[in-house]
Amino acid sequence: MIWQDIQRIRSEAPLIHNITNYVVMNTTANALLAIGASPVMAHAEEEVEEMVTRAKALVINLGTLSITWVNSMLKAAHMANHEGIPIILDPVGSGATRFRTETAQLLLRNTPPSIIRGNASEIRSLVLAEQCTKGVDSIHTPEETLDSARFLSGNGRCVVSVSGATDLIVEKDSTIRILNGHPMMPRITGMGCIATALTGAFAAVNPSRFYAAANAMALMGIAGEMAAENCSGPGSFQTSFLDALYNIRESDIKSRLKMEAA
Amino acid sequence: MIWQDIQRIRSEAPLIHNITNYVVMNTTANALLAIGASPVMAHAEEEVEEMVTRAKALVINLGTLSITWVNSMLKAAHMANHEGIPIILDPVGSGATRFRTETAQLLLRNTPPSIIRGNASEIRSLVLAEQCTKGVDSIHTPEETLDSARFLSGNGRCVVSVSGATDLIVEKDSTIRILNGHPMMPRITGMGCIATALTGAFAAVNPSRFYAAANAMALMGIAGEMAAENCSGPGSFQTSFLDALYNIRESDIKSRLKMEAA
Amino acid sequence: MIWQDIQRIRSEAPLIHNITNYVVMNTTANALLAIGASPVMAHAEEEVEEMVTRAKALVINLGTLSITWVNSMLKAAHMANHEGIPIILDPVGSGATRFRTETAQLLLRNTPPSIIRGNASEIRSLVLAEQCTKGVDSIHTPEETLDSARFLSGNGRCVVSVSGATDLIVEKDSTIRILNGHPMMPRITGMGCIATALTGAFAAVNPSRFYAAANAMALMGIAGEMAAENCSGPGSFQTSFLDALYNIRESDIKSRLKMEAA
Repeated sequence: MIWQDIQRIRSEAPLIHNITNYVVMNTTANALLAIGASPVMAHAEEEVEEMVTRAKALVINLGTLSITWVNSMLKAAHMANHEGIPIILDPVGSGATRFRTETAQLLLRNTPPSIIRGNASEIRSLVLAEQCTKGVDSIHTPEETLDSARFLSGNGRCVVSVSGATDLIVEKDSTIRILNGHPMMPRITGMGCIATALTGAFAAVNPSRFYAAANAMALMGIAGEMAAENCSGPGSFQTSFLDALYNIRESDIKSRLKMEAA
Repeated sequence: MIWQDIQRIRSEAPLIHNITNYVVMNTTANALLAIGASPVMAHAEEEVEEMVTRAKALVINLGTLSITWVNSMLKAAHMANHEGIPIILDPVGSGATRFRTETAQLLLRNTPPSIIRGNASEIRSLVLAEQCTKGVDSIHTPEETLDSARFLSGNGRCVVSVSGATDLIVEKDSTIRILNGHPMMPRITGMGCIATALTGAFAAVNPSRFYAAANAMALMGIAGEMAAENCSGPGSFQTSFLDALYNIRESDIKSRLKMEAA
Repeated sequence: MIWQDIQRIRSEAPLIHNITNYVVMNTTANALLAIGASPVMAHAEEEVEEMVTRAKALVINLGTLSITWVNSMLKAAHMANHEGIPIILDPVGSGATRFRTETAQLLLRNTPPSIIRGNASEIRSLVLAEQCTKGVDSIHTPEETLDSARFLSGNGRCVVSVSGATDLIVEKDSTIRILNGHPMMPRITGMGCIATALTGAFAAVNPSRFYAAANAMALMGIAGEMAAENCSGPGSFQTSFLDALYNIRESDIKSRLKMEAA
């Protein structure tokens, strides 16, 4: 399944429209290119509706939010929903400030995403309205977030993907756990944002959003393990991670995958 | 010629004023520093006119366009034309949305650039008003774009530099082809934007805009070949590419250059 | 002292709120993560006051200034002063345009920083109102700036940290000189901005702002030396620099530190 998705991404090079934050625009574009997708970053109100109709997925990321971008996010997401293009929402920093929590909830209400991907604190903040993150880093584990993720999935009819040492992917009562990954990953900025962008690439080729979300997280974890074996710190990890995304083979996935469905 | 330009860039460290996109600000600044130029990124309406008068070239890139930046681009370009400072325009994504195509055409009419550098689809969109790109990636070859490039060059009295597997540099009836480069290059975001920024550095030291454009593309291709020999994927390619720009010697250019004038 | 600060940063992971420029958002976030701090980038007027109350330091950087961001900088800095959170100001490009010089002076008057960190030309421009930089690069040495730094420190009751081949850290009549560093450092964009961000991390754990500023510059210089021994150009330098920040040990500091107090 994962390997089939990767092959389709590589052969079809789906266009992924990203409205994302300044910190990670470069690294997420490079991660999408490394796996074989075609990224475009566009946020102007004047063009987002036109751009998204050409895309196979829309990725919305609240990382360095400002009010003018919220309008563009809403416009692009409305058009994506109208055209049946999957939306992946990354509520970066939801829970850290009211502005972010409320923007995330506004997008959830008005333009329901297909997949929500965030860390445990962010996902909890969407349900519990609690102020519970330290900046953009999580202070909870995915397991502590299972009930919130289930509620959010059922209520919003979407897949919820919670990243952490063990990733949880939830669709109503179904859960997949991904045990791949490496402790170096949270030491590089934007790994969560890359996970969200790659989730967009998988959703562009796999009609099951549940498996698209799970396969993207499995690829992240496996590429993270491969990169960690070939690095001497977070600088060289970044370099090796892009190389791993580009070079990954079916045998890497077969020998490393730790995915549990429940 | 190329080597002389590089030596002048290294000794004079010309200031290159960039109004460019969020995705590539870091990598283009680093590429300009690696070759010996001095980059500045500034886009505020309040300062672009003052900043550009200190610069030896102005690079305008439409990559992550928004309406407030268009005013700054126009102001900076008016002042550059008034002061005789070369303008290099990169119409990123022209043809992908009306907003980008129209902004590119607005800049062409009101503040004619010295050099236009884009991929084949972008260059065609400026002449044929066709919607023909997939996001920011080209779906045409430079050779298919020769007539458009000639028309654009004659009409706008500018040099047109079309990047691709073979690069075309066109000034009216004269054409230079650069056959250097490597297939890894389009797998890294911003290589086109780096080409545009380096074209600015060459235009800052070489009074022939035709040869400035050609020499910049030749350097890109040669550094790309050197980087590809020393990488194991797109992550390490990026690192090696900046190292190659910094370390390139006259002998590298002599032994590798594949430039054909017609 | 330096080693104690690093240990505290690693164990406490202080949240550092950055309002910084587009060019360096990624690299400064990664540098803060590499040393063990927790970075957040947030600039929206709607959230900066709330975000800064959660932080242990506020870093304000004028690198790609626009007028809407100035309001956010003022709001965040007012709140930081009210809450006793140290403010580190990097007046990038002050002296290059009136807009930047005047914005830097506005921030100095209205929301006095704890530490100002800039290159020699930037620091001089705050005192002498001279137009004296080439873009964002300095045309003066720190030693030529000693009087300006002293005046600025006395007048603003702040620490002034001037980076260059020899770094100067000034508090009224006290001066520390750091002789660590490497000529490759100015060949990578954002090393000054990283120095400012790391100064924020040290100020978050060390109540002496004078020593926080000095220790941050010493770490920069030592990590720069370590990276230079393990690179073949500015691309691999960047990678090695982040690795060095992550891997640095007490013995590296003991064997390399060249700090002189006067």
